[in-house]
Amino acid sequence: MSLLVVGSMAFDSIETPFGKTDRIVGGAATYIAWAASCFVQPVQQISVVGGDFPEQELKELQARGVDLGGVQVKKDQKSFYWAGRYHLDMNSRDTLVTELNVLADFQPVVPESFQSAEYVMLGNLSPVVQMNVIEQLRHRPRLIAMDTMNFWMNTQMEELKKVLTKVDALLINDAEARQLSGEYSLVKAARAIHRMGPRYLVIKKGEHGALLFYKNHAFFAPALPLEEVFDPTGAGDTFAGGFMGYIAHTQDLSFENMKTAVVVGSALASFCVEKFGVQRLKEISQEDIETRIRQFVDLMHFDIDLVQ
Amino acid sequence: MSLLVVGSMAFDSIETPFGKTDRIVGGAATYIAWAASCFVQPVQQISVVGGDFPEQELKELQARGVDLGGVQVKKDQKSFYWAGRYHLDMNSRDTLVTELNVLADFQPVVPESFQSAEYVMLGNLSPVVQMNVIEQLRHRPRLIAMDTMNFWMNTQMEELKKVLTKVDALLINDAEARQLSGEYSLVKAARAIHRMGPRYLVIKKGEHGALLFYKNHAFFAPALPLEEVFDPTGAGDTFAGGFMGYIAHTQDLSFENMKTAVVVGSALASFCVEKFGVQRLKEISQEDIETRIRQFVDLMHFDIDLVQ
Repeated sequence: MSLLVVGSMAFDSIETPFGKTDRIVGGAATYIAWAASCFVQPVQQISVVGGDFPEQELKELQARGVDLGGVQVKKDQKSFYWAGRYHLDMNSRDTLVTELNVLADFQPVVPESFQSAEYVMLGNLSPVVQMNVIEQLRHRPRLIAMDTMNFWMNTQMEELKKVLTKVDALLINDAEARQLSGEYSLVKAARAIHRMGPRYLVIKKGEHGALLFYKNHAFFAPALPLEEVFDPTGAGDTFAGGFMGYIAHTQDLSFENMKTAVVVGSALASFCVEKFGVQRLKEISQEDIETRIRQFVDLMHFDIDLVQ
Repeated sequence: MSLLVVGSMAFDSIETPFGKTDRIVGGAATYIAWAASCFVQPVQQISVVGGDFPEQELKELQARGVDLGGVQVKKDQKSFYWAGRYHLDMNSRDTLVTELNVLADFQPVVPESFQSAEYVMLGNLSPVVQMNVIEQLRHRPRLIAMDTMNFWMNTQMEELKKVLTKVDALLINDAEARQLSGEYSLVKAARAIHRMGPRYLVIKKGEHGALLFYKNHAFFAPALPLEEVFDPTGAGDTFAGGFMGYIAHTQDLSFENMKTAVVVGSALASFCVEKFGVQRLKEISQEDIETRIRQFVDLMHFDIDLVQ
């Protein structure tokens, strides 16, 4: 089974209270691919990079089972670049630099060999690009999930709403869910967003965990309480990669399995924040992942005898 | 089995985005008693009120199985009074008025009939008053839990630290845990607070749920996602009442049972916020409570086969 991933592959410069990086490899699709490839191969990657993007990083992704057949390399251009600084609480950050570069006129192309994709993760990108990919698919995937952000709500809400009618699952953070729905209560926000299209809604709350909404059901997975959050960059994308990777691996679209996928996504995200960039995702073994999922079981499991 | 409760019984005036009350009955011990008495009778109440405190409210507590033998009524004085206004997010509030009145020189007296208490909940009060109660107890209870707040950390930290050496469980919010420990990470905060005395630490995060720490174990219970949080006043005290009421009822101090008690506390708190004051706690039936606990089971339960 395969997972089709669309998103940015980029450079980030990151400052946190714990340290500072020069340009390191980042981008939504990079994090998604590293996380998803823990569960599913091939990950079929659609993205665009400049001539400055390190060959070595591409080779490492290929070695991990990522098919780069949909990654355009624009030799004479530069990759997307973002620089940001996190505040002490790690929940808020300032963007210092955004250079779109190759992303400015990105025209995604779905290779013929990706046409049979059953599972699709549309990383945070312009809704026009997201729609373009959906329209290129001749065969309706079993599950299309997408991420988005406040920037697209502010600038391309109509286009975004059109994409929402085409997807099964939306993964966004709490502030984005509130902005998109105009509702402060996340329960009401979920109901409003379901009406926009996505049957499944995952609201990511960072250190406060993640909520999954489906029909009248809700499920909650906490974030693992960590001694240190070193760098939160990419945690949401890593969550999405773990979530979709697990679903593609299990091929099970039941709500019960989606719940487990939320826990798996949370577990992967808890690794991501332990080091800068995708470093930690490159290191972890299947055993590390299973050990961490067991920590989530311990964190969430309780027994009660309901007497009445 | 009984539960000894110490804390304020008071008047509150509350403004939320949803409405405004005149002086209604509140106070930590009032909320704790209403919540705990869902599970255990008698609740042995130690508090102080003025001549202005409504007889009817005291009668309703007695009818619920609350023994008011430790509640001093100062006929010619006024009850503690607090007025506050919540912001739109309901997580932050401004205090508009605080009148200590009878609480200013509160000298708690433990009645002889309360001396055999096995379970004790010290609501948020001056650590001097909390210590005074502990010192009056001739027989060490099986479990002493306490609440406190930033005000006591700012003004009576030494006295507070002495009380902490005498208690088994501390229930505070995340900002308080950070202030008390000087650690931003809640995992590190928990470790530091365990060293101060309490074996069990519950960190309440309001709409973001509650964490229980014990030795190297952690457990997390989410807050129930609600359509509307009408009035958060007393939710933390209600949590404490549900938590300690359930423990006193089950007489089980294992970590496993503490986890369940955290869920029960969260369930009770989810009722509290649905109406102003203790109104909702007066209305709920055992069936309502069980139905709500089942919602927590649904919210938290997932299955995973760890293959490797």
